[in-house]
Amino acid sequence: MGKYPKIPEATIRRLSNYLKCIEDLESKNEKVASSALLASMCNVNAAQVRKDFAYFGEFGIRGMGYNIQELRNHIKEILGINREWRIAVVGIGNMGSALLVYKDFLKQNYKIVAAFDIDPVKVIGHISERMGRPVEILHIDTLKEVVDARNIEIGIITVPPQEAQKVADQLIEANIKGILNFSPAPVRAPDKIKIRNLFFTSALDNLIYYLTN
Amino acid sequence: MGKYPKIPEATIRRLSNYLKCIEDLESKNEKVASSALLASMCNVNAAQVRKDFAYFGEFGIRGMGYNIQELRNHIKEILGINREWRIAVVGIGNMGSALLVYKDFLKQNYKIVAAFDIDPVKVIGHISERMGRPVEILHIDTLKEVVDARNIEIGIITVPPQEAQKVADQLIEANIKGILNFSPAPVRAPDKIKIRNLFFTSALDNLIYYLTN
Repeated sequence: MGKYPKIPEATIRRLSNYLKCIEDLESKNEKVASSALLASMCNVNAAQVRKDFAYFGEFGIRGMGYNIQELRNHIKEILGINREWRIAVVGIGNMGSALLVYKDFLKQNYKIVAAFDIDPVKVIGHISERMGRPVEILHIDTLKEVVDARNIEIGIITVPPQEAQKVADQLIEANIKGILNFSPAPVRAPDKIKIRNLFFTSALDNLIYYLTN
Repeated sequence: MGKYPKIPEATIRRLSNYLKCIEDLESKNEKVASSALLASMCNVNAAQVRKDFAYFGEFGIRGMGYNIQELRNHIKEILGINREWRIAVVGIGNMGSALLVYKDFLKQNYKIVAAFDIDPVKVIGHISERMGRPVEILHIDTLKEVVDARNIEIGIITVPPQEAQKVADQLIEANIKGILNFSPAPVRAPDKIKIRNLFFTSALDNLIYYLTN
């Protein structure tokens, strides 16, 4: 168990959203944010914001709002993203390519240090052209060796669904700690490996539930 | 208020994940699923699965597991995805292109009926080549007219972050009901418009929190 054993998963998820909104405010040179403002930006209510923050002790001074810089640092520390995390992306189609240029990863210490495909030669020219610089795409067969050599802890899966479990197994075999799966097929792993399946249909399902009900 | 006013948001989110797992089982010709199996596939515990389903009445017969086909239909009805939803994608870069070919949208009645970009001529050849067929990309200036003519209810934003709010405003002006934002900048809308911001960093934040704690 870590420092925060009893925090609801929904609170952890909202912390990420608060962080995004805080950084958005920071980019606009704001110094202080009220719970009402954060609530409005994150589509929750202000009481929820205060309740979520209360799990972690005193973040703000009553009536003064939250100091944005302190809040940002505190949330990053809670989430464990106050240090660099080294990531491999497997499957460099449209989705994988989008991730290679996703600027927010850099801002959050999410460093993509390797990109793999089953056919590196086929994708390399296309990606390099889009990114405006040469890109190194490695063959999937080198995965274990590269994960080890580059101290990679997280694998992102962006292959077609029928390949997803096979790639997950290869990542597990390569001693990766966590997997983020963008493929529309759920992947499974032993308990010691953390997995998040990010299904785009789920985001739409959720939106539509609230449109309907 | 709709039919299910008091369901926790986390339950609604998990319903989507259960649906994905159920469909995965269905594609393998399974007919029945236990709560233990669904739990293991969705990274929750079996008691949580039963509790989530209990909000909606009796889904299964004790000791018999859930009938997969009934469960799938029931969840789709709850979520409101048992009918077609017409969608526009705005911003046809890597991410937008990935969505145009995302097969699971079709399976869920999510029909992308229009794709917009600020420079349709520039992207059209590239996308057509990747999709293996001609693709119609419309100029963003035609958004309102096309949304109206094609009965589009949902807009997906896949433009760079600095353009995201502007596009959101255009979608709102076009009388869209819901917005799914893939851009890494949070977008805001009046209360009557439902918005979901899908930040990839949030998925990684969440994974890392559970790796760290």
